[in-house]
Amino acid sequence: MRTAFYISDGTAITSEVFGHALLSNFPIQFKHKTIPFVETEEEAYKVLEKISESFQDSGQRPLVFYTIVNVDVRKIISRSVGINYNFLDQFVAPLEKVLGVSSKPEKHRTHSIHETTYDIRIEAVNYALANDDGSNIKEYKQADIILVGVSRSGKTPTSLYLALQYGIKAANYPFTEEDMGDMLKLPPALRQYKEKLFGLTIHPERLHQIRSERRANSKYASLQQCRMELREVENLYRREKIPFLNSTKYSVEEISAKILAETGLQRRKY
Amino acid sequence: MRTAFYISDGTAITSEVFGHALLSNFPIQFKHKTIPFVETEEEAYKVLEKISESFQDSGQRPLVFYTIVNVDVRKIISRSVGINYNFLDQFVAPLEKVLGVSSKPEKHRTHSIHETTYDIRIEAVNYALANDDGSNIKEYKQADIILVGVSRSGKTPTSLYLALQYGIKAANYPFTEEDMGDMLKLPPALRQYKEKLFGLTIHPERLHQIRSERRANSKYASLQQCRMELREVENLYRREKIPFLNSTKYSVEEISAKILAETGLQRRKY
Repeated sequence: MRTAFYISDGTAITSEVFGHALLSNFPIQFKHKTIPFVETEEEAYKVLEKISESFQDSGQRPLVFYTIVNVDVRKIISRSVGINYNFLDQFVAPLEKVLGVSSKPEKHRTHSIHETTYDIRIEAVNYALANDDGSNIKEYKQADIILVGVSRSGKTPTSLYLALQYGIKAANYPFTEEDMGDMLKLPPALRQYKEKLFGLTIHPERLHQIRSERRANSKYASLQQCRMELREVENLYRREKIPFLNSTKYSVEEISAKILAETGLQRRKY
Repeated sequence: MRTAFYISDGTAITSEVFGHALLSNFPIQFKHKTIPFVETEEEAYKVLEKISESFQDSGQRPLVFYTIVNVDVRKIISRSVGINYNFLDQFVAPLEKVLGVSSKPEKHRTHSIHETTYDIRIEAVNYALANDDGSNIKEYKQADIILVGVSRSGKTPTSLYLALQYGIKAANYPFTEEDMGDMLKLPPALRQYKEKLFGLTIHPERLHQIRSERRANSKYASLQQCRMELREVENLYRREKIPFLNSTKYSVEEISAKILAETGLQRRKY
């Protein structure tokens, strides 16, 4: 199997994202190998050896995706026996022309701490944890968004992703059977923040499957119960005009991106 | 201010990461605008209008970073008045030659659900939450890694990032004053999983600042207390040969990438 290397003097996240996106166009399996924080010439030579070994072992030239600010380190990596993609640099010179400004590459600028955004993200993570699962209704005033839905419809991972990636304070509130009664109504604690609500729903069969992994053969996990709860929340969303989406076929990244697009919520970190 | 647009028929995460990395080479402020899930020609024409408006408002041609699988939608976006970077596509044809395989672009392949990794990530997030803050010592057997350190040294956000990004099950255990006594020793619950431990530390002044925001003027937040706790944990790490890093100047992304690089821990999701 051919290996794809992702190399950087930073986290190598940019190389990974670019390389994965490019390789996802091909119906082939690759072996992936990330080597971050290659900051010295000595380390760069070790990387060259790894690339050579991979070539010898597999008989296929590795693909090497790299972004490296340090000129000496970059020169060494660019001599690897792999097929080298210094994919960012070729855009820098044309962009200098467009902008009329010289580039000033700085190491660790992309995925490192930015003073103004660091605290915001950590604060948002703490907020999401403190306001997970309807645990802290009195802090809803500070919420940027309140995710609602039945148990196991994707609220918690989405809240955490919104916090970590975007610095958004997301609370989440689970509608439980007790909320349902004859007909699910919006609890008073939520009604006063109605403009912050965003609903999640999910296919009953998928919910049944997820809940069964937690509590097999329970009423909680039964398909009948899942169907009833989802019917109630979807009716509520429609009746109260709460925007919502069905999370069944979407990743946490997709759900989060869709929520931002639909609500116009501004991220605090780019 | 010039606007940078990030456009895709998927999440636009790839466009964002590439565009941000490229623009971070320039000492200029940009306005950022992400438009994900542009899936129809009608939506594409609306995007063209937004790009035109931005040009008219600012007098500066916007930068447009896009990855679009749908050919008709892509053609429309490529006619925008902005400076267009269809940055992935130009690598596809040369890579087809190298691989000897035709590309088969599929929408939403990069940041969408992959059956095999979805459950792994959600399970890892649930694990991190259940094993946050030393709350569930009996599940340490399932941990891929156990982060240790004093309160507020970065354990929880790192555990959650490792789970969400890499599907890694990270527990975390806080050393408290009660653990310290005359000298901090490794609690028995941790000793049996010593090979899974990874320590975090932080500069005393930074810890003092973070704790002061939580409990101003407390003993917990005092610089003296922070110094004492950090001295104890760092002595423990050295004595027990627990790998550790100082999180003060690093982002969650950097801490996580360094932990993976140092421990050789394998991610479950790429």
